[in-house]
Amino acid sequence: MQHTELKALIERQLEQHDANDWFLLVNTYQDADIVEVLEELAIEQTASLLVKLPSPQFASLFGYFSPLYQDALLQVIEQTEQLRLFKAMARDERVDVYQRLPAQDQQQILPKLAKQEQHDILKLAAYEAGTVGALATSAYVAIADNMTVIDALRFVRHNAANMETIYQVYVVDKDQRLIGTMSLRELMTEQDNAVVGDVMRTDVISVHAEQPQQDAANLIRRYDLLSLPVINGGKTLIGIVTVDDAMDVDVQENTEDFHKGGGTLALKDVSLRQVSTWTMFAKRAPWLIVLVFANMFSGGVIESYEDTILTYVALVFFLPLLVDSGGNAGAQASTLMVRALATGDLEMKDWLKTLGREFWVALLLGLAMAATVYGLGHYRGGADIALVVSISMVAVVLAGSMIGMSLPFLLSRLKLDPATASAPLITSIADFVGVLLYFYIAVTVLGSA
Amino acid sequence: MQHTELKALIERQLEQHDANDWFLLVNTYQDADIVEVLEELAIEQTASLLVKLPSPQFASLFGYFSPLYQDALLQVIEQTEQLRLFKAMARDERVDVYQRLPAQDQQQILPKLAKQEQHDILKLAAYEAGTVGALATSAYVAIADNMTVIDALRFVRHNAANMETIYQVYVVDKDQRLIGTMSLRELMTEQDNAVVGDVMRTDVISVHAEQPQQDAANLIRRYDLLSLPVINGGKTLIGIVTVDDAMDVDVQENTEDFHKGGGTLALKDVSLRQVSTWTMFAKRAPWLIVLVFANMFSGGVIESYEDTILTYVALVFFLPLLVDSGGNAGAQASTLMVRALATGDLEMKDWLKTLGREFWVALLLGLAMAATVYGLGHYRGGADIALVVSISMVAVVLAGSMIGMSLPFLLSRLKLDPATASAPLITSIADFVGVLLYFYIAVTVLGSA
Repeated sequence: MQHTELKALIERQLEQHDANDWFLLVNTYQDADIVEVLEELAIEQTASLLVKLPSPQFASLFGYFSPLYQDALLQVIEQTEQLRLFKAMARDERVDVYQRLPAQDQQQILPKLAKQEQHDILKLAAYEAGTVGALATSAYVAIADNMTVIDALRFVRHNAANMETIYQVYVVDKDQRLIGTMSLRELMTEQDNAVVGDVMRTDVISVHAEQPQQDAANLIRRYDLLSLPVINGGKTLIGIVTVDDAMDVDVQENTEDFHKGGGTLALKDVSLRQVSTWTMFAKRAPWLIVLVFANMFSGGVIESYEDTILTYVALVFFLPLLVDSGGNAGAQASTLMVRALATGDLEMKDWLKTLGREFWVALLLGLAMAATVYGLGHYRGGADIALVVSISMVAVVLAGSMIGMSLPFLLSRLKLDPATASAPLITSIADFVGVLLYFYIAVTVLGSA
Repeated sequence: MQHTELKALIERQLEQHDANDWFLLVNTYQDADIVEVLEELAIEQTASLLVKLPSPQFASLFGYFSPLYQDALLQVIEQTEQLRLFKAMARDERVDVYQRLPAQDQQQILPKLAKQEQHDILKLAAYEAGTVGALATSAYVAIADNMTVIDALRFVRHNAANMETIYQVYVVDKDQRLIGTMSLRELMTEQDNAVVGDVMRTDVISVHAEQPQQDAANLIRRYDLLSLPVINGGKTLIGIVTVDDAMDVDVQENTEDFHKGGGTLALKDVSLRQVSTWTMFAKRAPWLIVLVFANMFSGGVIESYEDTILTYVALVFFLPLLVDSGGNAGAQASTLMVRALATGDLEMKDWLKTLGREFWVALLLGLAMAATVYGLGHYRGGADIALVVSISMVAVVLAGSMIGMSLPFLLSRLKLDPATASAPLITSIADFVGVLLYFYIAVTVLGSA
């Protein structure tokens, strides 16, 4: 279904008032596609359509809106409708929405929910945003180890409608501690009268609620899981993270790393389609201004070589080339390292070995680039300048690469985010070092002016 | 289980020869963890351990090795063992391994497999690497629409052991055309005697075998699927892609985009832990050398302003600052755009609107940065130089941002990869434009020398 066709169908719903027709449309098309159209309508229009739906469809669609649009919707729908929504939403999404509500709205809505739901929200809301706990849902299937397989299957079938996933069931002891797991596939292929405790897997991969979200996504990817159990300090099972949420975490974290790599503070939960001029400015200005100061040091170095420049003005012609080349080689190295550290391809212990290889790679790169510029150096500035430019090229590429390679490791060592070693930051540091090296080599070869 | 502990356990297996003990170890620990240890052993050692295992465990572990290590293993194990492996491997992994075999090995192994397996390999091998078809497995559950729910459940249960996933079943007509789908959860909650054709979902999300892999991952993420059916031109169901493979595609594609963003050609299927100095050089040199030529243009521009420089040498002090600032702002803008285009957050039609906002953001950034440098400009070069530097700062930041923002869209429009607009490329282009603007403004304000 094309976006424009679906949009025409939905806009027709705004004019006519046959709730049944709208209900049929929602059941026929995919939630993600419908929401994409609805997000282009005015908030009030979307709200008027949503409240006409039965609770399950209302809640299911609501979960696909962006956080910003969700919050805006809650502002325009009546409290009885809010309540209906809260009762029907997926538990992990519900707690996210709840936490973004203004305190007074939280206080109004919470007492109106069932005790069980209140307890569930408060338990999940206890975890900080960005932790696994904040990502988890409590809608998982837990069984006892003394159940038979056939009883477990009946239990799963009976509870299927309310669970986030039924394809992995978790086995807990009487204190709700996680002791095993079985997939629905394993349950279906075991003998009916086998006892769960005898046939379950006991080497369960799990994650602590306080760990960062990315850890959950990494575990799910590494072990090819459909869901991952979340435990607290006492090994009590408190929820699960499902693979679809893990994929979303991967995308978010990658986007943040991209933004940081480009020297922008991460834009969380914001579409570039909607972000305001002011937000963009606020996210981009800090690094740019910091780098202005960094670049002033380069200017200071140049100033101290004023006489050399006046004597050999041809040196200036090669200034952008040399400083950029160091920065470019450094940006390559840092990008490779940041990514490898993020995916777990490299770890701290690989630093020395990687540094050794980087030295040889950078030396080869520097020599290749020096060979490329030698002729031009000769043509524009004569043999001496060509020599200075070529030696400097090798030096700045080596220096830039070593800095670009090492800084992500260093940041990681200091428990800072390696992605902070952005291309612009590396470029500016490499520039400073490049200017120093270039003029030092120039004065050494040419003699001071 | 810590890596070092598991390593000790596995190394002990190399010395003793109790196959049963080793079998027990493999069944107790996670495949991904065991393979991480095995990849650190010599190929022959790993091979000697693997061939001691029954086929299912052998094949399951084999699927977790990197492609490079898999190929090396196949070189050292005997052909009867290769055959045993090929019969037991997951079908999507098997065809990948088969396609990487040398042609003569392919010809030796294929006739020794069952007709059904030969057919399966050749069908999946028909799709080019990087397409959905090459990612798909044919181990899916397909049922007819006239089956009852209870019969479908029996069929699923009976076939559970051989399927990549049983949690989503696909409904096909007599020509194997995809006409519907049901999740196992839906099957389990429907009435036993309901007919599948009456209760199945008919709005099935599917993907063509010739589409790029990333499309499959995007659909799985967008619609929260556990598996995605793959069809050919005639709408015939030919396989499925599962969510775990989609996650791996996401990581690979993101890594390629990161590498490109840093100005490196993408390193496919290679760990940075193992990559050779020569490969690294080959992947990084091309862009660096291209950018050397790009930067020579900047040098040429500066050369043409030789007299201005000799008169106002203070202009040189601010050269790195100004060209870098334009490059940094451009790198920010391009990184944001490349990522937004990759995730689908922005599309071609958003170009103009985004360009308009970028203009205002860049103007604000340029003004903020100009304010930052004005004082220093005054101190080092007097009122005139301060004016030139400040006006130039606004101009180069505006120019760099506009270039950085537009190039990814332009590349996308030309059906090229937007990620080619790397930070180093944008920096070098912005530098050239920055130098032009800076000296033009200098001459205009100060008068030509």
